[in-house]
Amino acid sequence: MPSASPVSYFPTADEVEIFSAAAQQKLAVMLKGPTGCGKTRFVEYMAQQLGRPLITIPCHEDLTAADLVGRYLLKGGETVWEDGPMTRAVKLGAICYLDEVVEARSDTIVVIHPLTDHRRELHIDRLNQTLNVPDDFMVVVSYNPGYQSVLKDLKESTRQRMVGIDFDYPGADVETNILVCETGLNESVCLDLVKLAGAIRRLDSSGLSEAASTRTIVATARLINGGVSPRRAAIACIASALSDDLEIIAGLSEMIDNYLPESLR
Amino acid sequence: MPSASPVSYFPTADEVEIFSAAAQQKLAVMLKGPTGCGKTRFVEYMAQQLGRPLITIPCHEDLTAADLVGRYLLKGGETVWEDGPMTRAVKLGAICYLDEVVEARSDTIVVIHPLTDHRRELHIDRLNQTLNVPDDFMVVVSYNPGYQSVLKDLKESTRQRMVGIDFDYPGADVETNILVCETGLNESVCLDLVKLAGAIRRLDSSGLSEAASTRTIVATARLINGGVSPRRAAIACIASALSDDLEIIAGLSEMIDNYLPESLR
Amino acid sequence: MPSASPVSYFPTADEVEIFSAAAQQKLAVMLKGPTGCGKTRFVEYMAQQLGRPLITIPCHEDLTAADLVGRYLLKGGETVWEDGPMTRAVKLGAICYLDEVVEARSDTIVVIHPLTDHRRELHIDRLNQTLNVPDDFMVVVSYNPGYQSVLKDLKESTRQRMVGIDFDYPGADVETNILVCETGLNESVCLDLVKLAGAIRRLDSSGLSEAASTRTIVATARLINGGVSPRRAAIACIASALSDDLEIIAGLSEMIDNYLPESLR
Amino acid sequence: MPSASPVSYFPTADEVEIFSAAAQQKLAVMLKGPTGCGKTRFVEYMAQQLGRPLITIPCHEDLTAADLVGRYLLKGGETVWEDGPMTRAVKLGAICYLDEVVEARSDTIVVIHPLTDHRRELHIDRLNQTLNVPDDFMVVVSYNPGYQSVLKDLKESTRQRMVGIDFDYPGADVETNILVCETGLNESVCLDLVKLAGAIRRLDSSGLSEAASTRTIVATARLINGGVSPRRAAIACIASALSDDLEIIAGLSEMIDNYLPESLR
Amino acid sequence: MPSASPVSYFPTADEVEIFSAAAQQKLAVMLKGPTGCGKTRFVEYMAQQLGRPLITIPCHEDLTAADLVGRYLLKGGETVWEDGPMTRAVKLGAICYLDEVVEARSDTIVVIHPLTDHRRELHIDRLNQTLNVPDDFMVVVSYNPGYQSVLKDLKESTRQRMVGIDFDYPGADVETNILVCETGLNESVCLDLVKLAGAIRRLDSSGLSEAASTRTIVATARLINGGVSPRRAAIACIASALSDDLEIIAGLSEMIDNYLPESLR
Amino acid sequence: MPSASPVSYFPTADEVEIFSAAAQQKLAVMLKGPTGCGKTRFVEYMAQQLGRPLITIPCHEDLTAADLVGRYLLKGGETVWEDGPMTRAVKLGAICYLDEVVEARSDTIVVIHPLTDHRRELHIDRLNQTLNVPDDFMVVVSYNPGYQSVLKDLKESTRQRMVGIDFDYPGADVETNILVCETGLNESVCLDLVKLAGAIRRLDSSGLSEAASTRTIVATARLINGGVSPRRAAIACIASALSDDLEIIAGLSEMIDNYLPESLR
Repeated sequence: MPSASPVSYFPTADEVEIFSAAAQQKLAVMLKGPTGCGKTRFVEYMAQQLGRPLITIPCHEDLTAADLVGRYLLKGGETVWEDGPMTRAVKLGAICYLDEVVEARSDTIVVIHPLTDHRRELHIDRLNQTLNVPDDFMVVVSYNPGYQSVLKDLKESTRQRMVGIDFDYPGADVETNILVCETGLNESVCLDLVKLAGAIRRLDSSGLSEAASTRTIVATARLINGGVSPRRAAIACIASALSDDLEIIAGLSEMIDNYLPESLR
Repeated sequence: MPSASPVSYFPTADEVEIFSAAAQQKLAVMLKGPTGCGKTRFVEYMAQQLGRPLITIPCHEDLTAADLVGRYLLKGGETVWEDGPMTRAVKLGAICYLDEVVEARSDTIVVIHPLTDHRRELHIDRLNQTLNVPDDFMVVVSYNPGYQSVLKDLKESTRQRMVGIDFDYPGADVETNILVCETGLNESVCLDLVKLAGAIRRLDSSGLSEAASTRTIVATARLINGGVSPRRAAIACIASALSDDLEIIAGLSEMIDNYLPESLR
Repeated sequence: MPSASPVSYFPTADEVEIFSAAAQQKLAVMLKGPTGCGKTRFVEYMAQQLGRPLITIPCHEDLTAADLVGRYLLKGGETVWEDGPMTRAVKLGAICYLDEVVEARSDTIVVIHPLTDHRRELHIDRLNQTLNVPDDFMVVVSYNPGYQSVLKDLKESTRQRMVGIDFDYPGADVETNILVCETGLNESVCLDLVKLAGAIRRLDSSGLSEAASTRTIVATARLINGGVSPRRAAIACIASALSDDLEIIAGLSEMIDNYLPESLR
Repeated sequence: MPSASPVSYFPTADEVEIFSAAAQQKLAVMLKGPTGCGKTRFVEYMAQQLGRPLITIPCHEDLTAADLVGRYLLKGGETVWEDGPMTRAVKLGAICYLDEVVEARSDTIVVIHPLTDHRRELHIDRLNQTLNVPDDFMVVVSYNPGYQSVLKDLKESTRQRMVGIDFDYPGADVETNILVCETGLNESVCLDLVKLAGAIRRLDSSGLSEAASTRTIVATARLINGGVSPRRAAIACIASALSDDLEIIAGLSEMIDNYLPESLR
Repeated sequence: MPSASPVSYFPTADEVEIFSAAAQQKLAVMLKGPTGCGKTRFVEYMAQQLGRPLITIPCHEDLTAADLVGRYLLKGGETVWEDGPMTRAVKLGAICYLDEVVEARSDTIVVIHPLTDHRRELHIDRLNQTLNVPDDFMVVVSYNPGYQSVLKDLKESTRQRMVGIDFDYPGADVETNILVCETGLNESVCLDLVKLAGAIRRLDSSGLSEAASTRTIVATARLINGGVSPRRAAIACIASALSDDLEIIAGLSEMIDNYLPESLR
Repeated sequence: MPSASPVSYFPTADEVEIFSAAAQQKLAVMLKGPTGCGKTRFVEYMAQQLGRPLITIPCHEDLTAADLVGRYLLKGGETVWEDGPMTRAVKLGAICYLDEVVEARSDTIVVIHPLTDHRRELHIDRLNQTLNVPDDFMVVVSYNPGYQSVLKDLKESTRQRMVGIDFDYPGADVETNILVCETGLNESVCLDLVKLAGAIRRLDSSGLSEAASTRTIVATARLINGGVSPRRAAIACIASALSDDLEIIAGLSEMIDNYLPESLR
């Protein structure tokens, strides 16, 4: 883990307290919220706060139980066992973070069941070996409830062993703060960008599958820093990023004209 | 199996007697009931009571007969046979527990047929070898009838060789007892939590795919132990765990306000 | 094959004569009938009567022709040929029993075609070798016509090379006899159980996918032997085994109350 | 090929002449007709008549081009090339018979295209080697047009390089002749069986997916030889073989009673 | 490539000129037209005319990019790289002919993109090596637009880098010429066959998925050469080859009676 | 990378400025636009302008995370790690170009997430190793919004980390310029071709899935250079390339007659 520099994070509610209590009580945590609102950064922040290693597993449809737990590899004519990231996390007493957990097949995710109930153990079937789970080991999962379909849903038996924390976009003050800190852009344009994002998020029937995240306005601010005019930067990083539909892009561009100055000064 | 400490279990009906009789008569057992009502813990308890080893196999769609029975592995340039958990259970005279059995494909599950009828034998085709099944070997399967779809159902030829035991949430007294013993939280809040769970379970058309299990209120109690207020803990461990729908979460939060005190004392 | 003890079997019609004639005439046999009515036991009995070895192959969707005929395995750096169960059966002059044959893909089952027509030969393509099939080799398949869907059906070219024998539940006298012999339970309760099963089988629109088999009442009798009351045993082994639907279970429980005594004596 | 004894075959039309002309002209042949009407036996007969080896490939969904042409195998640490049956047939100048060709995926079958047009060559891609096809090599395919679905159909580019020969059940005289020769049963019962089969074939809306083939009445005759009464034998080999539907079986049994004597004499 | 004898080809339009210009200009070519109208032979002819090697790849659903470009093989315990046919064609400066290209998955076909645009290079990812494509290398694809479904279609980005040449059945004169040259049958019967094929091609709603190709009448002529009467030969090679539907075959047979003499002289 | 000769590119809007700013600000770029409008050439041009290596990955449905990141290979009995193109791009500080990114499964594409947000790191799970991403590394993706279906769409969490640049066909002046430079054809015919393409692009309901790209008129011009008449060249490279529908081809041919001269001079 080379990223030893401290992660900055601006809390938006009591998420730090709930997470800390869950960590202390050895409960698993489930982070829910839209794209780009800071869930991944929050986990990185909490891992640093708690002084625990963080192992991130991006979930996808082909993730198997063996990918998580480990497998035999051929090395020098011998089969050698190689721990998967979940087993490494157990041995390290790390926070094991399953990013976008609903992308994984629910029968892969059941691997975490005996780790997260009264059993607190990891049985590695291929080794016929059972590891006791140290107190510092913790499972955190995240997903975007807006994506969730009937086909891709966590099983009740998985959900009901989790502490849920609901995320939303940060308030205007916090979000402006994030923009200024992350990009160094002047506060007035940052505030304009936050107002623009807020307006887009309030649209009732925008045709967008998701609203403008904090990440999109950070990108806009950085493109402005790169010498692009605010309006053009917002079209590239917000309108064109959010949609391929020419009418929707035109509507968003009109909003951009209303909220942003033509040039930086 | 490092978990040698005695498992506590509070019976809710005659499940201990039926299981014991089935074990004595060498009959397989099928545990049915909702998520988090204690089926897994019951099997652990019975294994300890009967003094038999327990081998748990979490079932999933990719589980193959070879996963259960065994396979050849390459080790040091040689192919070496490795017993699967089912074969190990037969050799040990263990209880072989197929957790969430309906997740497995029914053609994998037929492996248990000759083990559980008059034949009492395990034929390992790849070794061309037949093991006699010792008297202590027992098959136990569990599933949640609420999940079952037409696509995922046990075959009649599997069902009809099983003794069925139906589980439900424990009564209020037993459930309060469980909460106090498991978490050490004061009895009055435990009773409030049990009443809350009972009210959620009685909801007619809640929009929930499953009601609040004993496991969710144990988690709530532990989060309260971690310093979180009862209402906030219940929102995280019950409302947010059970649903992603904002209206449903709001409805559950209202119930939580009615049943739980604002703070612990 | 360690199970050398004689298999008991109570014929219900002329199945023994038809099977014997088919065996003498080198014709394949197709056993049709509901779950748990004794098809597997009948094949074991006939194998003993005819003094031929029995090789049972439980069919499933992933069974391939190579699983039946054989394959090359890596052993000690060499690829070594390993006969499949069908090839072993041919070499032994055994009865090769394909249990639940409709579960297998029909293109796997075509392997038996040249073995069961005038050719009487097994061509092992990978070895480029043709075995003559000895007179004692016989193919027997079984399935439950109640399961059969359009997707899972034997091909006409397979069916039309078979002698069909239709099985049903045994008559009351024979079934009572089976119960007494198998379980040692007193004859009066056995008769009650047989009457109960008969009543369930006569139900017109029970909502059950299949009726109570002989196997379920044998299990009930054994659970009674284990000390459970007749009614409770029948609920576990019949009502709960046959259905997950609470109303259906209640209906069956009412029938159980009418047919069985509250306690054994 | 151990089956050197002469194959008996009773022609029903000009199939022998058409096949011989196609063989002389190096054209591929496509045999079409219902189950059990003698297509496979006809190919065996023609191979003997023409003095060419016969290599039969039962087609199925998983048949790959490599299965036909050949593949590399690991033997003694070396990869060794192994010819598939199609390549062996080319090298031998054999008749290559693709039985039930519509079962194979049409993209596997395209392997025969360069072998059966003006090119007359087999390119083995993995060996980067091209074999000239000898004059005696011939491709014969067979299928049952009654089975054919939209999903399983030969490609036009495959069909249009074939000489089609349509088969049907033999006439009553020929079929009686076949029965007497194959089974030795007395001619009068053979004639009754042929009349019965004819009646079933003439049924308009029988609910059967296919009518009684010559093979089913040969089986009936053999079961009679084994000591079973004609009516009982016909129920087993015709009624029960053709259908699982109890009403259809009852209807067929009634026909059997009308056409066959109660006992052999 | 053993087929060094000159390929005969009768042009039907300006296909030779367009192909030659595309070859000179290093453009890829796409041949479109019905089954059996001579596309494959045309490519063979052009390869000979241009003096370039021809490598034919029959496309199918399972063709992967690795099949085209190459892969590592185990040989003598070493992994050895083996060029695929596309890579061989690039190295040889050959015409690479993808026969029935729509059968391949469009994501396999994208391999040809960098070979056929301004880049003219083949990047072999597994070797991390880039080959410059020689001027003589040329990609030719063919397909039958009549087959094409929405599911099996070339991507626009593939189509728009091709020169399209549309094929149809040859005119009566050319087709008669082909027949006489290919089969040596007397011209009068050849003309009758060409008229018959023309009549079938003009049928409005024939129920046929494709009309009689030149290939089917060449086969008919050859069967006549083998001693079969013209009418019987045409039924086998045209009517029975084109359809399995008895009514359609009867209709075609009637047409055959009108167009062909009963016997050869 | 042997293609060291300078790539010519004619900008159509401010795409060079936006791309340069994104590169400077270490933001990922998403190029959107129709087939053959120059997206791939633009990336090649920008890579040369910025003096960075370019690694192109054509995306397809079977692309896995291991294909991008790397895998263990067997070499000489040892398993040796081999970097995938993404890892090579990170180590080189290259532009990593995912061509037709919507063809890849979105769960493969998530591999780029930690490379393109504040983390700027590539975790290679199989090596348990984390690479810091150098400042020059940049991710560029491209796709055609016209192809995009609900099934094949970028995830919001991927989109919202990208700077979008929308491409369209170049204006008439630029496109004529491209034609003259690329093909050397005389300007007047080039202008006619550009007008023809423009007219096709303006068609309202053409039945075409995509309009004539710059690439198709470049191909036409080259075929004209090869000696084919302008009209015939345009039919082959535009009408026949764009459609298989005879009526549409006829309509396009009529347009071609109106816009192009019959012969070159």
